[in-house]
Amino acid sequence: MKLSDIASALAVTLENVSGDLDITGVSGIEEAGPSQLTFIANPKYASAARTTQAAAVIVAPDFPADGRPVVRSSNPYLTFARALELFYQPPAYAPGIHPTAVIHPSAKIGAGAHIGPYVTVDENVVIGEGCVLLAHVVIYRGATIGNNFFAHAHAIVREYCRLGDGVVLQNGVIIGADGFGFARDGARWHKIVQSGVTVLEDNVEVQANACVDRASIGETHIANGVRIDNLVQVGHGCTVGANTMLCSQAGLAGSTKVGKDVILAGQVGAAGHLTIGDGAIATAQTGIPHDVAPNTMVSGYPAIENKQWLRAVAVFNRLPEIAKILRRLERGKE
Amino acid sequence: MKLSDIASALAVTLENVSGDLDITGVSGIEEAGPSQLTFIANPKYASAARTTQAAAVIVAPDFPADGRPVVRSSNPYLTFARALELFYQPPAYAPGIHPTAVIHPSAKIGAGAHIGPYVTVDENVVIGEGCVLLAHVVIYRGATIGNNFFAHAHAIVREYCRLGDGVVLQNGVIIGADGFGFARDGARWHKIVQSGVTVLEDNVEVQANACVDRASIGETHIANGVRIDNLVQVGHGCTVGANTMLCSQAGLAGSTKVGKDVILAGQVGAAGHLTIGDGAIATAQTGIPHDVAPNTMVSGYPAIENKQWLRAVAVFNRLPEIAKILRRLERGKE
Amino acid sequence: MKLSDIASALAVTLENVSGDLDITGVSGIEEAGPSQLTFIANPKYASAARTTQAAAVIVAPDFPADGRPVVRSSNPYLTFARALELFYQPPAYAPGIHPTAVIHPSAKIGAGAHIGPYVTVDENVVIGEGCVLLAHVVIYRGATIGNNFFAHAHAIVREYCRLGDGVVLQNGVIIGADGFGFARDGARWHKIVQSGVTVLEDNVEVQANACVDRASIGETHIANGVRIDNLVQVGHGCTVGANTMLCSQAGLAGSTKVGKDVILAGQVGAAGHLTIGDGAIATAQTGIPHDVAPNTMVSGYPAIENKQWLRAVAVFNRLPEIAKILRRLERGKE
Repeated sequence: MKLSDIASALAVTLENVSGDLDITGVSGIEEAGPSQLTFIANPKYASAARTTQAAAVIVAPDFPADGRPVVRSSNPYLTFARALELFYQPPAYAPGIHPTAVIHPSAKIGAGAHIGPYVTVDENVVIGEGCVLLAHVVIYRGATIGNNFFAHAHAIVREYCRLGDGVVLQNGVIIGADGFGFARDGARWHKIVQSGVTVLEDNVEVQANACVDRASIGETHIANGVRIDNLVQVGHGCTVGANTMLCSQAGLAGSTKVGKDVILAGQVGAAGHLTIGDGAIATAQTGIPHDVAPNTMVSGYPAIENKQWLRAVAVFNRLPEIAKILRRLERGKE
Repeated sequence: MKLSDIASALAVTLENVSGDLDITGVSGIEEAGPSQLTFIANPKYASAARTTQAAAVIVAPDFPADGRPVVRSSNPYLTFARALELFYQPPAYAPGIHPTAVIHPSAKIGAGAHIGPYVTVDENVVIGEGCVLLAHVVIYRGATIGNNFFAHAHAIVREYCRLGDGVVLQNGVIIGADGFGFARDGARWHKIVQSGVTVLEDNVEVQANACVDRASIGETHIANGVRIDNLVQVGHGCTVGANTMLCSQAGLAGSTKVGKDVILAGQVGAAGHLTIGDGAIATAQTGIPHDVAPNTMVSGYPAIENKQWLRAVAVFNRLPEIAKILRRLERGKE
Repeated sequence: MKLSDIASALAVTLENVSGDLDITGVSGIEEAGPSQLTFIANPKYASAARTTQAAAVIVAPDFPADGRPVVRSSNPYLTFARALELFYQPPAYAPGIHPTAVIHPSAKIGAGAHIGPYVTVDENVVIGEGCVLLAHVVIYRGATIGNNFFAHAHAIVREYCRLGDGVVLQNGVIIGADGFGFARDGARWHKIVQSGVTVLEDNVEVQANACVDRASIGETHIANGVRIDNLVQVGHGCTVGANTMLCSQAGLAGSTKVGKDVILAGQVGAAGHLTIGDGAIATAQTGIPHDVAPNTMVSGYPAIENKQWLRAVAVFNRLPEIAKILRRLERGKE
């Protein structure tokens, strides 16, 4: 594909480019060859722009090109994503229902569906148009799902859950399994029926082996555009606001309210019955025992404001030395 | 359902209730409407009792009703759980074996079984009466399982494992996969055959995508009434005592002994070959590198007694200030 | 089996053994009966050698036998592993293709394959000789897999991934699901197509419900002999060196390079775009935000050198007392 065609497809401008190069693909800045595009989204790799073999580098408006061929973009990472789409699309699945699929007669599935081998769809399920259900997907009774649903092999949607349009479930995802609700009854735990459901609004993506439990009462609610990574746990009765990102292995205990545009990095844990404000960020492994104010960045276990934590950690690492100084001062005093 | 009927079904008393209300359901204290019951189990929500629209609130004997309609219970959370059961029961599955189930002729399955599509049950498996095996459940050879087993879609029980009565497996649970056992053999790791099994006693529930590995030798043993939440890891050779609760994403390394009535909160990790005493509690994200005494509450990484940890954390958060004071004192001394 | 036969099969020597005992199995040092072998690999159990009922104990060359029957081995744990193999082998699966398997006509599967019920193998897949694919395994289009592949029930290999010889996948493993790649596009997240693959070299074992994501561009690469435990997350674009061990619930964010012979213990997390040197060890729950030098042991959150961390933790636990001393010193100064 000609670089000039790429530039016009992506509505970006070229700089320091001589001739019209043939581009064969997109690659990382260290791996890119002379016929590939690359990008700088993470400043950590800025110096690599001087040594990359790439035909051109997608960079931000203020990046110093120093005469090298660059593609200027107000959002280099997004431009990279779109360039990549010009060269690669994930496998498509033609409409058709595999003869081994077990679909209850009362289920309604919209036009254009691809339903793979051994899929099971139980009674009273409703699915919109253009769905793709790959092998071994299981949809329990009464689930309702919008248009353009894409469920990878072994994904599961439990009874009565409601999913909007454009939902993507990667492999092994479990939407609406029973919440972890038990009441003490003397020595033993009495299971609380999980009468609620899980609701995913439009364009939610949930990645491999993640779990979003159904609510005990009411619903677990995931808003538009939320991204949930592999092995994440969303406890029963939680709400997660629009475009929030829950990174791998993060966990929310029950009934926690997470705002919109929040980022919980990998392995973050949040206790139950608390509120994390819009735009908050928790860095990796943060343990959140209490509410988090909107637009704050928190870290640590238990979580405190990120800058305060960084300062405290710096002192923590010198604690043995500090203890020594203190002992000296004490002796001096005696 | 009449409130009076609910009260007598649950053996609780009403207070400040005029007339006999029609109750349509049970809900959270903030969401409940005027025909719903609600409850206060978490003191955090006590003040909401003054503003809830609920018909009545299930409360403890010492809760100040202040003239509002309440349902008195010695265990409000359990009463809530039982009230909820009056209005909701999870889907029932009628006896019957789906024609696509692959059941080895040598397998013995008790009366009243519901076996869903694409279930596979291998040779010499024995399952008791009243089991429900939903779609895609896989039972490996030689597993023996008691009465009233309920396995959600995609649950797996590996070879020769033994499960008691009333065991519930949520979706994607894996009972008895190989433990992580490897011996150094020069540069490489030699796999240790995992000759043991996993044993679940009666009334154990394991939730979505959790793993309880088989033992290298002997057995991994989960006692009566244990509750294991989503994405929990139980390493090979562990023993877990009766009615213990392992919350989401907690992990036990190999050969650890957890007592009865223990609670490991979310994301807790315990090293291998140690003992956690009966009644111990570890708060969320605790990292346990050594034995924990019975009936203690531990926190922190590495784990220490909870109260000591809370005091240490309070000082940790002031470390930069403390370092400053120390520098001042040092200068003063010079 | 005669103890003398075991000794010659394992090429080890016996000491203080009178007569030729009949050995019926191998067991833990506390559980072993008088006809069983046991071993000491963990010094924690050394004292148990005096009280064990075992017929003989496999020990290191320098272990003081004190007249008790021992099996001398330069690697007691490996000798134990091999002894165990004399008494137990996991179930074998005879060649044969179950009639319910759905195998695309263009797929090529080598001789001697065992393919269980409801396995699906999509177009253009190539699998070598001697594979075992148990029930419900799903292989997406274009995947290529070497000889002696063993995939437990419900394991999944996604499109175009490449696996070497001798790869073992435990249940629920997902190789090559989409990486967690999204670019900001105004308020919403734009999905980055995950055009790359996951590559597992020879003799890699991945355990239950673990996920190794495909790369956005290029590949996620797992070298020879790597061991990945249950519920581990390997993010897109990571590379993991030969014989490295990722223990349960550990997580790598995207594009991180882990060297060879590394051990990341349970629940360790590593941020993205960093390098962990050969031979490094991170103890359980370590949070790694930056590069780790080869052959170092790190701990803590954020990670520091292990010995420094242990010293700092010791002071951390005394922080309340230290704060008190400091207050006293301040007062003394005023």
